[in-house]
Amino acid sequence: MQWKVKISIKLKSGVLDAQGKATHKALLAIGFQKVQEVRIGKLIELKLEGDSRTEVEKQIQEMCQKLLANPVIEDFVYEIGEL
Amino acid sequence: MQWKVKISIKLKSGVLDAQGKATHKALLAIGFQKVQEVRIGKLIELKLEGDSRTEVEKQIQEMCQKLLANPVIEDFVYEIGEL
Repeated sequence: MQWKVKISIKLKSGVLDAQGKATHKALLAIGFQKVQEVRIGKLIELKLEGDSRTEVEKQIQEMCQKLLANPVIEDFVYEIGEL
Repeated sequence: MQWKVKISIKLKSGVLDAQGKATHKALLAIGFQKVQEVRIGKLIELKLEGDSRTEVEKQIQEMCQKLLANPVIEDFVYEIGEL
């Protein structure tokens, strides 16, 4: 079976988000005065083969821990859908 | 009122995703043979002030077109929630 997985990776709250801060400043500078906070993360979409949802979930968790996210400073959540 | 907005920015389909391709190769190299495609986008979370959902929506569209996304090669979708 084919699966589509959407992974959201965000910096843990409390971790300084330099890219978010820079974007916030840039938004204020071009006139968006009402913005109070900006946090920037990654959005990863994968297509993969797998026999079951459980197998796919195991793979995704492993990928995130080994390569896609940095578990020290980032949290990840994912949605798995059948294709 | 305070609002929380979640913006997903993805490369348009057809646009070469170099970062996605590199991540795909890296996943294959460390043993995730079942991955078929990887696309990488941005996830932006904003907190902002606004009188109404319509006003916030207008601001978000403008921010995406002017700064957050590159409308030539990227598409964006957003979800607006009250805080």
